[in-house]
Amino acid sequence: MSGVKHGGDIYSIAREYGFKPEDVLDFSGNINPLGMPESVKRAIIENIDILSKYPDPEYLDLRQAIYEYSGVRPENIIVGNGGTELISLFFKVLNPKSGLILMPTYSEYEREIRINGGRYEYYRLKEERDFVPEVDDIINCIAGHDLLVICNPNNPTGQAIYVEDMDRIVKEAKKRDCFIFVDETYVEFVDDVNSVSSAGLVGRYDNLFIIRGISKFFGTPGLRIGYGLTSSREIINNMLSIKDPWTVSSIAQVAGQAVFRDINYQNVSRKWVKEERAFIHNEICRFTNIKVYDTDANFFLCKILSSHSASALREYLLKYAIDIRDAASFPYLNDKFFRFCVLDRKGNEKLIKLLYDFFQSY
Amino acid sequence: MSGVKHGGDIYSIAREYGFKPEDVLDFSGNINPLGMPESVKRAIIENIDILSKYPDPEYLDLRQAIYEYSGVRPENIIVGNGGTELISLFFKVLNPKSGLILMPTYSEYEREIRINGGRYEYYRLKEERDFVPEVDDIINCIAGHDLLVICNPNNPTGQAIYVEDMDRIVKEAKKRDCFIFVDETYVEFVDDVNSVSSAGLVGRYDNLFIIRGISKFFGTPGLRIGYGLTSSREIINNMLSIKDPWTVSSIAQVAGQAVFRDINYQNVSRKWVKEERAFIHNEICRFTNIKVYDTDANFFLCKILSSHSASALREYLLKYAIDIRDAASFPYLNDKFFRFCVLDRKGNEKLIKLLYDFFQSY
Repeated sequence: MSGVKHGGDIYSIAREYGFKPEDVLDFSGNINPLGMPESVKRAIIENIDILSKYPDPEYLDLRQAIYEYSGVRPENIIVGNGGTELISLFFKVLNPKSGLILMPTYSEYEREIRINGGRYEYYRLKEERDFVPEVDDIINCIAGHDLLVICNPNNPTGQAIYVEDMDRIVKEAKKRDCFIFVDETYVEFVDDVNSVSSAGLVGRYDNLFIIRGISKFFGTPGLRIGYGLTSSREIINNMLSIKDPWTVSSIAQVAGQAVFRDINYQNVSRKWVKEERAFIHNEICRFTNIKVYDTDANFFLCKILSSHSASALREYLLKYAIDIRDAASFPYLNDKFFRFCVLDRKGNEKLIKLLYDFFQSY
Repeated sequence: MSGVKHGGDIYSIAREYGFKPEDVLDFSGNINPLGMPESVKRAIIENIDILSKYPDPEYLDLRQAIYEYSGVRPENIIVGNGGTELISLFFKVLNPKSGLILMPTYSEYEREIRINGGRYEYYRLKEERDFVPEVDDIINCIAGHDLLVICNPNNPTGQAIYVEDMDRIVKEAKKRDCFIFVDETYVEFVDDVNSVSSAGLVGRYDNLFIIRGISKFFGTPGLRIGYGLTSSREIINNMLSIKDPWTVSSIAQVAGQAVFRDINYQNVSRKWVKEERAFIHNEICRFTNIKVYDTDANFFLCKILSSHSASALREYLLKYAIDIRDAASFPYLNDKFFRFCVLDRKGNEKLIKLLYDFFQSY
C-alpha cells in the first residue's frame, strides 16, 4: 500500500511464493533475531486497558524512560511513529536547501529532501576503500551544504564513524552553519555503543539531530516507536507544531518504557549478535566468489565476484523461503551486491548452506 | 507535546489537578462508555508475537475486515494512524483552493487547509435554527468551492444529515467539480447508522472521501486506527505516494480485524448509548438555565442561559475530576456553550447532580 519499497516485506513475499509470513526467514529486515523482549509482552498484557485512553500527547513517561536509557534529557527528546515519521517531520522542518548524503545509504533521506523541494548531493563512500568513511575528506566537503546526512553505522555498508570523529564533524559543521542528521537505527548492535553513538554530543551542539527506534535492536517493528534527540528547541517546537498528535499508540507508550529498562535483553542481544556475526563472517570468508565487507552492525554487505547476479541469488533463496536484500537499488552499488542480517544459528547455517549450493563451491 | 488542543487530554488535567489519569471522568472525549471490547484484548493477547514483524504495508486483512463491516470494497479503503493521519494526507493531496466548511465544527479541517496554503470559508449552521443543517441552502453555497467539508453527525452540534440529503449534496457538488469530505467519526452512535452514513455512496461518486476511525465508537483511542473510503483512485494513489509506510501498528492490524467483526459489542453499545442519551436529555431538560440541542450522536451541545460561563462550569467540575468541553473556541459559539458526552449511568448521574449544585436550581 506504500509508495516506497523497503526490505522486510515478508507479507508480499509470502503472498507471491505461497508461504505463510511467519515461515519466511527474513535476512533482509535487519531485525534482532532474539525477537520481541518478554518484558514488552508482559507490559502490554498488564496494561492493555490503557488502549481505552488516548495516548498522553506529551509522552512524559516514555520520554523519561528514553532519558534514562540514552542519557539525553527529556526536553531534548521527541517521540514518533517509528523513525519514519520523525525523519519525515525533521526534513520538512529543516527544509534544507542543499543536503549532502553519505552514500550508498537508506533511500528515505533523499526522498524527503526531494519531497520538500531541496537539492542534495551524494558524498561517495568509495568501494575501492571498502566503503570505510574518511572523516577528514567528509569535513572538507561540508562547505556549501546546510545539511549533512549520516547513517551510523551505515546501512547497507555496515561501518560506523566513531564518536570522536563525529564530534569533529559536528563541530566543523557548526562553524559552517550546517546541520547534522545522524540515523542511529543500528547503533545498539555495535559491540561498544558508547564508542559510536553521538547521544553524548546532543547537549553540546544544537546543530545535531539523532534518530533512533526500537524496531531493529529491540525486535519490535510492529510497535512503531521512534525517537529523535536534539538540543535545538527550534527544531523540536517546529516539528511538534506540524506533527499529528498521538501517533505513538498508548500501548506503545507502556511497552516502550519496558523495553528501555530491559538491560538483560540488551546485554544478551549484543552478545548473541557478536557471536553470530563472527560465525557468519568466518563462513562467508571461505567463499572465493564472495567479498564480504567489515561491519559494526548486525548485517553484512557482500559483493559477488563470479558471473552470478544478486537478483538471481535472491530468487534462488526465495524458493527456500529465505529473503535477502538485493542491493542493486542503492546508488554506487550494482547487481553484484547483496545485504543480509544475522539471524539465529540455525537460520544462519541454512543460509550458508544454500549459498554453497548456489555457487556450487567455496 | 502536540501543537494543537483537543478534548480528552486526561493526562494534563490529571497532572494539573493532582488526580490519577484513570480517575478522571472524561465527558469531553466523546468515547464509548463501554470501553474497549473484550474481543480486542483477546486478539492482542493471542497475537502479541506479531509485534516482532513489521505491519503488512498493504494491510490486506485489515482492509478486508473493514470491507465486511462497511460494505466498501477493499480497493476503496485506505488505513492510517487514526483519522488524524488520513485527514492530514487527504488535505495535502487534494490541496483545495477554496474549501467550504460547515461550522461550528472540529478545528482540524481548517488547520489542514491553512497548512497547505488554501483558502476556506465558513458555512454557518444557524444558532437561531438550533444548528440544524439546511440542505438546499448548503447546495446553493457550493459554487465557487472545490471542497465541501461536513462532519456527520457534526461535532459539536450533534446533528446529522441523512443519506438521501448527502446523496443530493454529493451529486450537485460533482456537477460543480467540488469534492466532498465527510467525517463520520460519530456515525456509528446514530440509532440507524445506514440512514446517515454515506458509505453506500462511495461506489457511485468519485468526488467523495469519508473518514472513520475506531477511537470513539469502539472505545479504543489508544490503538490509532482510522480509515478513509473513496472510489477516487487518484486520491488514494496520491495519498499512498506520500504516506509513511506502517503507521498502523501490527497489533492494531489484528485488533482492528476483531473490532469490526464484534457485532455484539456494536449492538450493545448502540442500545446503551440510546438509553443514556434519553436519560440525560430528560434530566438536562429540567434545567431552566440550560438549553440543550437535539443530537444524533453520543454527545450534547448545551447553552447556558444564566449569567454563568462555560469555563466557570468546567473549572467547577474539574475539582470533582470531571472534564467537559468548554466550547468557546468553536467559531460562532461563545463562552456560554459546552459539550459533554454520554458516559455510564453512575457518571451521568454524578454530572447531573453537580450541574444542579453549580446552578443551585433546576
